[in-house]
Amino acid sequence: MNIILLSGGSGKRLWPLSNDIRSKQFIKIFKTQTEEYESMVQRVYRQIIKADPSATVTIATSKAQVSSIHNQLGEKAGISVEPCRRDTFPAIALATAYLHDVRKVSEDEAVIVCPVDPYVEDDYFTALKELGAQAAKGQANLVLMGIEPTYPSEKYGYIIPADSHKVSPVSTFKEKPDVRTAEAYIRQGALWNGGVFAYKLNYVLDKARELIGFADYQSLFDRYETLEKISFDYAVVEKEPAIQVMRFAGQWKDLGTWNTLTEAMEESSIGKAMMDEDCQNVHVINELDVPVLAMGLQDVVISASPEGILVSDKGQSSYIKPFVDKIDQQIMFADKSWGSFRVLDVETESMTIKVTLNAGHRMNYHSHKNRDEVWHVISGKGRAVVDGLNQEIEAGHVISMKAGCRHTVIAETELKLIEVQLGKDINVHDKEKFSLG
Amino acid sequence: MNIILLSGGSGKRLWPLSNDIRSKQFIKIFKTQTEEYESMVQRVYRQIIKADPSATVTIATSKAQVSSIHNQLGEKAGISVEPCRRDTFPAIALATAYLHDVRKVSEDEAVIVCPVDPYVEDDYFTALKELGAQAAKGQANLVLMGIEPTYPSEKYGYIIPADSHKVSPVSTFKEKPDVRTAEAYIRQGALWNGGVFAYKLNYVLDKARELIGFADYQSLFDRYETLEKISFDYAVVEKEPAIQVMRFAGQWKDLGTWNTLTEAMEESSIGKAMMDEDCQNVHVINELDVPVLAMGLQDVVISASPEGILVSDKGQSSYIKPFVDKIDQQIMFADKSWGSFRVLDVETESMTIKVTLNAGHRMNYHSHKNRDEVWHVISGKGRAVVDGLNQEIEAGHVISMKAGCRHTVIAETELKLIEVQLGKDINVHDKEKFSLG
Repeated sequence: MNIILLSGGSGKRLWPLSNDIRSKQFIKIFKTQTEEYESMVQRVYRQIIKADPSATVTIATSKAQVSSIHNQLGEKAGISVEPCRRDTFPAIALATAYLHDVRKVSEDEAVIVCPVDPYVEDDYFTALKELGAQAAKGQANLVLMGIEPTYPSEKYGYIIPADSHKVSPVSTFKEKPDVRTAEAYIRQGALWNGGVFAYKLNYVLDKARELIGFADYQSLFDRYETLEKISFDYAVVEKEPAIQVMRFAGQWKDLGTWNTLTEAMEESSIGKAMMDEDCQNVHVINELDVPVLAMGLQDVVISASPEGILVSDKGQSSYIKPFVDKIDQQIMFADKSWGSFRVLDVETESMTIKVTLNAGHRMNYHSHKNRDEVWHVISGKGRAVVDGLNQEIEAGHVISMKAGCRHTVIAETELKLIEVQLGKDINVHDKEKFSLG
Repeated sequence: MNIILLSGGSGKRLWPLSNDIRSKQFIKIFKTQTEEYESMVQRVYRQIIKADPSATVTIATSKAQVSSIHNQLGEKAGISVEPCRRDTFPAIALATAYLHDVRKVSEDEAVIVCPVDPYVEDDYFTALKELGAQAAKGQANLVLMGIEPTYPSEKYGYIIPADSHKVSPVSTFKEKPDVRTAEAYIRQGALWNGGVFAYKLNYVLDKARELIGFADYQSLFDRYETLEKISFDYAVVEKEPAIQVMRFAGQWKDLGTWNTLTEAMEESSIGKAMMDEDCQNVHVINELDVPVLAMGLQDVVISASPEGILVSDKGQSSYIKPFVDKIDQQIMFADKSWGSFRVLDVETESMTIKVTLNAGHRMNYHSHKNRDEVWHVISGKGRAVVDGLNQEIEAGHVISMKAGCRHTVIAETELKLIEVQLGKDINVHDKEKFSLG
């Protein structure tokens, strides 16, 4: 099974756990059987491999998410990195070319495309396999998953099938309707269009060559910025006569708001939290080191992270975006491919950060123009390289770096350090990277 | 006017803004005319001086609060420090002896005692002056303020006056009643006993000499720990036949819970906060550097500090104490006489702290047995003394101190530093103080 997971968007709707660089699919919120928490990305990857241990999984995403994917999945999944955002048609074309040229998937094999973030159970992955098998038959150029609606949603487009068989030709597509129109569609037997579909690799490759014109994956990647923004639906689906839809009646939830996300939580709280007995339908997700105490609340979600604190009526939580747009604040925490960082203190001319490097990992060899830095190792062992000079480091060591000086840390064990930055114009963009020679 | 302000208690009911070392009277929550915020202590001191610029103000309190008082009032108010807590009779006796022996108040002058924390307006201080003047007349040994009740409270004792004049002999005292009994008292013309009273200095001095037996302030201070815990009401008031009550009909609010405290706030939020239009009767008090977003809430208080986050229905907030008692966490921030500190990060064998020293102030010269420390100066100028050696310091300087080494910082301007502590048993009690020679 070749799966392309479309991993999009910034995560304003799940602020403060998502921010400009951590999208919602990376929030660790689902309890696993081993009592740990996994993110949507980790959950869906685990579910795919359970359904098909030999699946080829490719995540189509932006550069900004690569660190988070490496942090959460290691090197297990392939990544088709979009140099910039150009909507779904270029993204799917690029990922398909990546499958063909990099992953060496043959032109006759089926490819399944689905968004990374619906909350689904194992039956969904069985359905994906069937979707791929149907596409491989070649009865149609595209086979869409039609999800049996559970309510007249305004959030999805609808597919009207020609008949009521499990696999049916598509009669028509309908744009996102209002509730009453959605009710009418459902009475006609309409299905949700969840953006899940399968095709033979060469179908999309040919379409892409025809519409964009390119030699191979690398050439498409190189000129990605020049491509027109256009959706796969508009560029391909709406113009394709040979389309089938396959029904899926299992669970398929879009966890895009705090309201829907908390419905999928196994327990009422994650992190340090206390609630009194009068709390009803209250969820606390607390990524801070200090406790949250909730008393006498109903239908409320409380979410706290180094970015801020949300306290919202659950229904109201879907209207969060314009408020989060107003917040003008630097990123306060991030997962990186090598570990994570968290801002501890911000002053006009200084910033204090806690850096955690995973064992065996290192940050880039880099320098800053406008700030001095001091590292104070608080735990772990490793090696620092400062202007080409190596030194072994461990808890208690203090390393000073003037502006312009090149530096990195290589962690032998997990290594934590406090970094104090000093300068008149401290800015994440003030960073030049070098190879470590 | 000689005023003794009784400043008691730890502040669990106003967690997370109060903690074991910051009592509620030090929370800066009241907006002043200059758009700054002041605490209960600062507000009441300002109001007293406005009513009587030459007032002698003495705060009777424990050692734990001395730093906070100096931080908020400087050296303006006298402090009668109780070496340990021994209830109100020993506290008032000690403060009265302090007034006599240290502040040289004569035995014939009136002294007014009142709690530091009721929320009152200027008319209250006019009433305090009248209370003192009435005590100075010598018609009675004690003159109590009788507060006209605004509702049948279960929180106060009641005073039944003998007549309905402004100044009346006391007929009887009543213990804290239930609501129905309180209603009956109020129908009889009862007044709240707010613990506000005046006496001629020698009256309490004589009582204290009679009941405790001591030579002067210093000798009473030295044997304070040996004194019996006994309330002023029980030791003095209940046995005194010559008592008058003076009516007070102005505002007198006890701001002991989040519910009552938020009623006294001029605006719906302090600190970084956003609310949507559906929030009704919501108050946010946010001492963190990151925003709180409240959506669709009614009758809720949200309070955030480095200690934690409270989200509570306002009515429910008075039941907070047992939950806060369960929190087993070190102090995360504190105001000191020399400035303040805030814990930024806690690990098993390290702690990172931000220290702010006010201009002209210094911390104690001290050492630690079990931890090394490093200071990173992030702003300001001053002088560090490390094992007797002086060095000028400014932003960018790094000073390392091994366990056992004596150290202090003297701030010339406001000085901020990041302190990284490293050791196997980091503990606030691991501190030995020295004189700076």
